[in-house]
Amino acid sequence: MTKLKWGMVGGGEGSQIGPAHRLGAQADGLYDFVAGALDHRPDEGRAYAQRLGIAADRAYGDWQEMLAKEQARDDRVDLVTVATPNATHFEITKLFLEAGFHVLCEKPMTMTVEEGEEIVRVAAASGRICAVNYCYSAYPMVRQARAMVRAGEIGKVRLVVTNFSHGHHGDATDADNPRVRWRYDPAMAGVSGQFADCGIHALHMASFICSDQVESLSADFASTIPSRELEDDAMVNFRMAGGTVGRLWTSSVAIGRQHGFDVQVFGETGGLRWASEQPNQLIYTPVGGRTQIIEKGEAGVSEEAARLSRVAIAHPEGFPLAVANIYVDLAAAIRGETRDGLPTPEDGARSMAAVFAAVESAKADGAWVDARPPMFR
Amino acid sequence: MTKLKWGMVGGGEGSQIGPAHRLGAQADGLYDFVAGALDHRPDEGRAYAQRLGIAADRAYGDWQEMLAKEQARDDRVDLVTVATPNATHFEITKLFLEAGFHVLCEKPMTMTVEEGEEIVRVAAASGRICAVNYCYSAYPMVRQARAMVRAGEIGKVRLVVTNFSHGHHGDATDADNPRVRWRYDPAMAGVSGQFADCGIHALHMASFICSDQVESLSADFASTIPSRELEDDAMVNFRMAGGTVGRLWTSSVAIGRQHGFDVQVFGETGGLRWASEQPNQLIYTPVGGRTQIIEKGEAGVSEEAARLSRVAIAHPEGFPLAVANIYVDLAAAIRGETRDGLPTPEDGARSMAAVFAAVESAKADGAWVDARPPMFR
Amino acid sequence: MTKLKWGMVGGGEGSQIGPAHRLGAQADGLYDFVAGALDHRPDEGRAYAQRLGIAADRAYGDWQEMLAKEQARDDRVDLVTVATPNATHFEITKLFLEAGFHVLCEKPMTMTVEEGEEIVRVAAASGRICAVNYCYSAYPMVRQARAMVRAGEIGKVRLVVTNFSHGHHGDATDADNPRVRWRYDPAMAGVSGQFADCGIHALHMASFICSDQVESLSADFASTIPSRELEDDAMVNFRMAGGTVGRLWTSSVAIGRQHGFDVQVFGETGGLRWASEQPNQLIYTPVGGRTQIIEKGEAGVSEEAARLSRVAIAHPEGFPLAVANIYVDLAAAIRGETRDGLPTPEDGARSMAAVFAAVESAKADGAWVDARPPMFR
Amino acid sequence: MTKLKWGMVGGGEGSQIGPAHRLGAQADGLYDFVAGALDHRPDEGRAYAQRLGIAADRAYGDWQEMLAKEQARDDRVDLVTVATPNATHFEITKLFLEAGFHVLCEKPMTMTVEEGEEIVRVAAASGRICAVNYCYSAYPMVRQARAMVRAGEIGKVRLVVTNFSHGHHGDATDADNPRVRWRYDPAMAGVSGQFADCGIHALHMASFICSDQVESLSADFASTIPSRELEDDAMVNFRMAGGTVGRLWTSSVAIGRQHGFDVQVFGETGGLRWASEQPNQLIYTPVGGRTQIIEKGEAGVSEEAARLSRVAIAHPEGFPLAVANIYVDLAAAIRGETRDGLPTPEDGARSMAAVFAAVESAKADGAWVDARPPMFR
Repeated sequence: MTKLKWGMVGGGEGSQIGPAHRLGAQADGLYDFVAGALDHRPDEGRAYAQRLGIAADRAYGDWQEMLAKEQARDDRVDLVTVATPNATHFEITKLFLEAGFHVLCEKPMTMTVEEGEEIVRVAAASGRICAVNYCYSAYPMVRQARAMVRAGEIGKVRLVVTNFSHGHHGDATDADNPRVRWRYDPAMAGVSGQFADCGIHALHMASFICSDQVESLSADFASTIPSRELEDDAMVNFRMAGGTVGRLWTSSVAIGRQHGFDVQVFGETGGLRWASEQPNQLIYTPVGGRTQIIEKGEAGVSEEAARLSRVAIAHPEGFPLAVANIYVDLAAAIRGETRDGLPTPEDGARSMAAVFAAVESAKADGAWVDARPPMFR
Repeated sequence: MTKLKWGMVGGGEGSQIGPAHRLGAQADGLYDFVAGALDHRPDEGRAYAQRLGIAADRAYGDWQEMLAKEQARDDRVDLVTVATPNATHFEITKLFLEAGFHVLCEKPMTMTVEEGEEIVRVAAASGRICAVNYCYSAYPMVRQARAMVRAGEIGKVRLVVTNFSHGHHGDATDADNPRVRWRYDPAMAGVSGQFADCGIHALHMASFICSDQVESLSADFASTIPSRELEDDAMVNFRMAGGTVGRLWTSSVAIGRQHGFDVQVFGETGGLRWASEQPNQLIYTPVGGRTQIIEKGEAGVSEEAARLSRVAIAHPEGFPLAVANIYVDLAAAIRGETRDGLPTPEDGARSMAAVFAAVESAKADGAWVDARPPMFR
Repeated sequence: MTKLKWGMVGGGEGSQIGPAHRLGAQADGLYDFVAGALDHRPDEGRAYAQRLGIAADRAYGDWQEMLAKEQARDDRVDLVTVATPNATHFEITKLFLEAGFHVLCEKPMTMTVEEGEEIVRVAAASGRICAVNYCYSAYPMVRQARAMVRAGEIGKVRLVVTNFSHGHHGDATDADNPRVRWRYDPAMAGVSGQFADCGIHALHMASFICSDQVESLSADFASTIPSRELEDDAMVNFRMAGGTVGRLWTSSVAIGRQHGFDVQVFGETGGLRWASEQPNQLIYTPVGGRTQIIEKGEAGVSEEAARLSRVAIAHPEGFPLAVANIYVDLAAAIRGETRDGLPTPEDGARSMAAVFAAVESAKADGAWVDARPPMFR
Repeated sequence: MTKLKWGMVGGGEGSQIGPAHRLGAQADGLYDFVAGALDHRPDEGRAYAQRLGIAADRAYGDWQEMLAKEQARDDRVDLVTVATPNATHFEITKLFLEAGFHVLCEKPMTMTVEEGEEIVRVAAASGRICAVNYCYSAYPMVRQARAMVRAGEIGKVRLVVTNFSHGHHGDATDADNPRVRWRYDPAMAGVSGQFADCGIHALHMASFICSDQVESLSADFASTIPSRELEDDAMVNFRMAGGTVGRLWTSSVAIGRQHGFDVQVFGETGGLRWASEQPNQLIYTPVGGRTQIIEKGEAGVSEEAARLSRVAIAHPEGFPLAVANIYVDLAAAIRGETRDGLPTPEDGARSMAAVFAAVESAKADGAWVDARPPMFR
């Protein structure tokens, strides 16, 4: 099987997410990394790309150059990953899709609901694959949770409780550090801080495992570090289409929590719990029964969970392999196979609608607000 | 030192809380258990009291008899524990206080805010000790948390997040079991189900550790088992007088959580975490530093934490000894010493005000409501 | 039911084990604490006893006085707890038994195998109850483990692995602290340090859960702090009568382990794991199946586990209540009922035989040695 | 930077270790996977290699063909990974080294001590890199432990305790399954079963973290499933050159342990603990202080730990990235840089010497035996 050709926009030297994408795309030998516009500083981007093994003529100075020149090649890249600052995702994703490239876009996919809906339309019209990197949904044990819910193993879902709270922005004396400050500045981050940054991962997770969608929500936002204009802590109550009650807490000032992303799903006949710092176990309790530990790689897990696990039971698989799973499924999708779990532009648009709904609700003292994009109402 | 004389109303055979009180009161040899009206069925109560070693003439058929006869004795009981059904707490507590007995009342102290304020006044007028059994606050590591907050070790508290969620009422096929059903029936439980049952423990804990009071709240209630009139799941956002943001989730349908009561406190310079299923450790993270495990009994803990721990480091001490700590402090208070941590009638009245505020808010789609008793506004 | 009368030798102010016995004996209201010779300093012992509520005429200056005067009383104590320095256990236990008192002796019961066998004989001849405080065996979930093994739920036991390792004597600069030093000085501690102190708890646990006895062993001892004559770290391999392979590690220099006592039992069809720092859970894995968490207090546990648990599921019960369970069973045994799990003088004698066998083996470079008392060969 | 060319012998379809090597070699984009003899069945091997993207002319039928034809190419592979059945490691590794290829050999490197010493000599003479896949040593937090020991942060190491115990061969009814049976059959596995399979990982880990070597050992072996000729459970006590006491337990019948590989290191001034199922945390306790959790990726960890971590703090990195770290360091070494932590042929030879020493000791009832290869005595 020949490899797909892969390129990247953003993810330059020192970026957090760049390495995860490169590990993810390359781990399984499915892609050749052949092109990139990795940095907003053209020279740095070109030099870094070449250090990563990209030929000089495909080490681009900016994404416009990359778009133009790759379009012109016979051996142009199959897939472009967009890992640039958030405000540029929309334009880059849209233009690459329209030019016929498959795209994997980092979250948030866009900055507004309208842009989100636009990507949905563009992607559909293009016939290209467009995915959003909600990569936590690609952990084998998250797929196992979803498969169990779908199979009715915990009955109708009554309640989903999810948190994505860390403390890495809890130091007020570090609040002016540029790597932190922009996240709470509307000029750069848009309408929401922590909820748009981490909360939408949790909200996607709730929808993903429940195979259901958020309909309405009520939010309470706080800027616990007063110099911040945007929220660094948020609580969102929500209701899903199927009637499930949702609770979501997200914080960046929860000092001592490192990567506190977890989800609990409670149904009529059982409960499930998964946590991103211990991703290879899924905790399951049947109603009236004992709590059981489902191990990644054990006999009898769902087809999806088995397919997306690479090494033997209890050999831990971490975040980079969750990203790799997104790339595995993208490769299959690009080759024309169906991959049900890939996060879609619709997911990206729904996230934006939820962000704007939460902002509106928080401003209105927690009033309940429709959380759906207009196109899905 | 002669022992105090102790009696109990309620807590009969098969009750959940009776054994905890007897273990708690007797463990340290501070009290003689000499009187009781243990059951609403007079004969069963008298027989059980005698099986527990109480003399026949102080094994009473009901609390009215106990009140009348103990009052008439020279060697009357010093302390009465009230562990009857919730709706009777107010009357029994009030009358025993007025008759000059010290009282430890199970929570909820009353069914209404007005009754709560009445107990505050009666207790003050009586000159007797009246305490409410918020016994989790008497765990050594909870006291350690409170001492650290008071000493400024985590700076000003920004955020407190607490959960008290279990799954023991999650089986809809068991919902008509009388031991479960009454909790969700307004005729027996009053205006609130799970929040009044467990949520107020969590709310007291937040106030206790922060040495602060809840001022306002917004609630979202759900009856996830539809036959229930009262809520079996609730989310409450709140604000404390000092500005601290609060988040409280309580549930009885969280299948797989056994006794999921925990609290996290996040301040300007550190975070703390405590969980009731692992009560002998307090998790502490200084901002920018490593997470540390503070062990019950280690050198250097606060005076309160040291005083309320009985056996060596890492020898676990559990729920009955937390209750015992309440009795230890009650004995000291009865003897005229000051005991700062004992839960007060004011705490009981505040809980009721929070319950009524949460009910009002939940009915008003999460509107923010004053959560203080009128007497403390 | 009238209370039994209880007295204590040793366990004076500041002792580690004294409070555990007082909590344990008093918690359930089964005993009145009426006599004591609590300290080797007569005046301190008498004063402390009176502070604990003992009448002046039964607050004795030494155990000889207590033995003589209690024997002479009509209302003499039923049960005497011996919690004195180890070297005195034998004589005190023997004389109180011969004088017709029931005795609970702290471990080690004696300093030699011969003394151990003597207590076995004396106890049998006396017709009194003699128990040794292997109190960990009285945790509900330890009883559950034993019940499951007996019921064949894990098949024939192939392997038992147990550790009792802590780091509280790991500071060489504190090695001359008298509270630490005596434990490694043959003049005070006898032939063995850490193995005799903690290892025999682990060995008893292995025998208890497996309902089997150690036959032979091979030991490796180390004095990792060179000034110590006796071992502060030991590994003991052993074989049980039924063929089970045993592995036991014990250490007092394992810095970071607080109370690292755990046991794992592996049979033909399942495995069990229990740890003393998390005593309310028993971890069970059926062969080929998922790991399950058995909670203290859950429906369906063994009769013994249910009987020895006092408060509801997941309300933790700790070390003092394990000691209390010994006292509960002692009270029953004193009243003539059968209590199968009470640790016996035979257990005490077997421990001593194992200690001497381990010392002999360690001196002989790990040669395998018969670990049984001569009377049981 | 141009990629290195990589080939693989063994690791065919369905093998456990093949995927880990492919993920590890490809994740960082340092190698092109261009050649392979993946299966002992020539046709299956060729087909599978091509499905993995290898050109038809480098998809070989057996390793002899691969050796001959790669030697003849100008663009021959730089590095060959040997992941064949154990008994063939020696010959393949030796011949590829002699032919001028760099080699990464799976453990055990050889079947005898003499072969191990031969590889040491051949590798030295060849001037090629030869590494053994003790990949657990490449986890960032294992490197952190080693760096802390080297920096004296826990003082002189007194004691190292390591376990590698699982239960995946605990089902006697599955003992004849060919995937299990060969491991306990001397005709296929050599002189040792579980100790040679997993124990040597643990022994390497102890040496690695302590930067010290095993000198002598005493072993107790058991075949708890009687049909097995080789041991399925082993306890090994050892002493290191620097005087450190070692304890190692390994088992394949510990039902309920999934991948129970952990190591504890206790020094004069602190203790460390690491476990392979939670590889991103290192637990550290300074003597007399509180236990701290060191997180992969936190500020201030050692250079090695920082270098070998790819994604942000608390984003878990698992087993495939530990293997990848071996490949990262191999690439650097092949390019002439120094990489101190790479497992060497000397490590491989020492493992074999320990295996034979343990077998000899176990047969001699635990007698202490020199555990060093003759060349290192």
